[in-house]
Amino acid sequence: MTSTESKYLADIYAEWLGRMTAEPEMQLPAMRDLFEQWHLVTGEPTEVTYEEVDADGVPSVWCVPQGCVTDRVVLYTHGGGFVVGSRHTHRKLAGHLAKAIGCRALVVDYRRAPEHPFPAQLDDSVRAYRWLLAQGIEAGHIATSGDSAGGNLAISVALKLREDGDPLPAALLPMSPWLDMEHKGETLESNAATDALVQRPILEGMSTMFLGADGSATDPLANPLYADPAGLPPIFMNVGGHETLLDNAQRFEAMAKRAGVEVRLDVADGMQHVYPFLAGRAPEGDKAVNDMADWVRPKLGLA
Amino acid sequence: MTSTESKYLADIYAEWLGRMTAEPEMQLPAMRDLFEQWHLVTGEPTEVTYEEVDADGVPSVWCVPQGCVTDRVVLYTHGGGFVVGSRHTHRKLAGHLAKAIGCRALVVDYRRAPEHPFPAQLDDSVRAYRWLLAQGIEAGHIATSGDSAGGNLAISVALKLREDGDPLPAALLPMSPWLDMEHKGETLESNAATDALVQRPILEGMSTMFLGADGSATDPLANPLYADPAGLPPIFMNVGGHETLLDNAQRFEAMAKRAGVEVRLDVADGMQHVYPFLAGRAPEGDKAVNDMADWVRPKLGLA
Repeated sequence: MTSTESKYLADIYAEWLGRMTAEPEMQLPAMRDLFEQWHLVTGEPTEVTYEEVDADGVPSVWCVPQGCVTDRVVLYTHGGGFVVGSRHTHRKLAGHLAKAIGCRALVVDYRRAPEHPFPAQLDDSVRAYRWLLAQGIEAGHIATSGDSAGGNLAISVALKLREDGDPLPAALLPMSPWLDMEHKGETLESNAATDALVQRPILEGMSTMFLGADGSATDPLANPLYADPAGLPPIFMNVGGHETLLDNAQRFEAMAKRAGVEVRLDVADGMQHVYPFLAGRAPEGDKAVNDMADWVRPKLGLA
Repeated sequence: MTSTESKYLADIYAEWLGRMTAEPEMQLPAMRDLFEQWHLVTGEPTEVTYEEVDADGVPSVWCVPQGCVTDRVVLYTHGGGFVVGSRHTHRKLAGHLAKAIGCRALVVDYRRAPEHPFPAQLDDSVRAYRWLLAQGIEAGHIATSGDSAGGNLAISVALKLREDGDPLPAALLPMSPWLDMEHKGETLESNAATDALVQRPILEGMSTMFLGADGSATDPLANPLYADPAGLPPIFMNVGGHETLLDNAQRFEAMAKRAGVEVRLDVADGMQHVYPFLAGRAPEGDKAVNDMADWVRPKLGLA
């Protein structure tokens, strides 16, 4: 049984899809403007302040809950297919998550495709992570989080750090991660009728822009379904049951389990893409945020 | 000499005007999306928290600077020609103003034209003012503020309260107010080459939507240039020297002076429409906010 309030997310997605369908020639600036509405889904978290910061060249915003500890941090990478979305669309969601955990969150404005194809997004996110270390934050006191394409980055940042021999974060918190750059998942078809926004043509358009001329859809850093998860930190994912991307999370969960990684996946019945956006508006969003916080606090050494 | 940082405002306005000119058939939802970028001009004010609130049916957001007094309030009405803009585009600007004063600001999402023509915007703004009184805030502890069309409302709210015999706010703080619904001002022509956004066709389109079928361009509550300012609270306006709307503020200043109202008008050389948006980014924006705060604090009984 889904809440009445949660319908807002399906409605706004249906409105966007309707506008994009009605205007197939919609230009990128207009599409970016459209997706900037994402923040509307989330209620303003109370008792959180903000501060813009340059994270070694990556424009970012700190979300600082009143009375939080300052030595634990969520590194938040926003969704939007690597093409749309910003630190502004996800400020409130990251603020809710930070507040529930009792730490700060850093929301990063990585460079977007197609102007900057893969691996610019990953490079910027890793750069922000290393900037946190340079600020004196211990790797074991950092969790990565992000949604959709940013959920991909929450994982691929850890893969890249492992590859480079850098210290890994304490935990990964991807929401509705978009991992499959080949569009092979069966829920892409089986949930096409229930997902209000994420349809094959959008994914194909965005992966083309993301990969650019030189990227490969099977590069493990672009598509973690091709990565070896062995040695990754504990992972907690959530995903909506109505999503076409549902099996991205399910396939990665299975891979991680086989590789011996601690992994949890919550599938929320009847929910749309990145339903934690509903924090501050609908009980499903608040529950998702609180569940992530309860799970990650001990990983970060918080009581 | 204008600052390098202040050029951002002229640049973003020129980009919007370019997009609207390139797409003369731009629909209202796309235009609203475009203007939602307004918030980008303003840097996040630090040490301010936010809380959404229903002000007797008017969706609003509280801006609450840390350590502020809670019994003084700025009622903030956003700009956007009565057609575009929202509590989200102006949250940061109102947050800066509230922080500089040391009180709270309430940013109201009045109903917008053309779906809701005049006087829906005024009715909602007055309703929010009366809701403040019902919360125990004294009229003499409230200042109205707003920019552009919201600067009109910052004045017309006081006119409507006077008409209804309600207690008046302590002070009015309109920024770049748009008052002239007849488009008669001489700076509309003489500053057309320097104003990066506000050109006659935009104003004509918005006033048509605002006035609707029944409104009059000479109704004193729609066009305060036809009002009698006698008995209004002290007024402090600022406006950019490059604005087509410059003489809206100048004409209202002259009227208010003749009527014996305490009035101050600051004209900022070389600045664009609603240059206080530059708070947190450029010195001109910070100065405008600080000057308003210094002027209004004693009016609100603050040291």
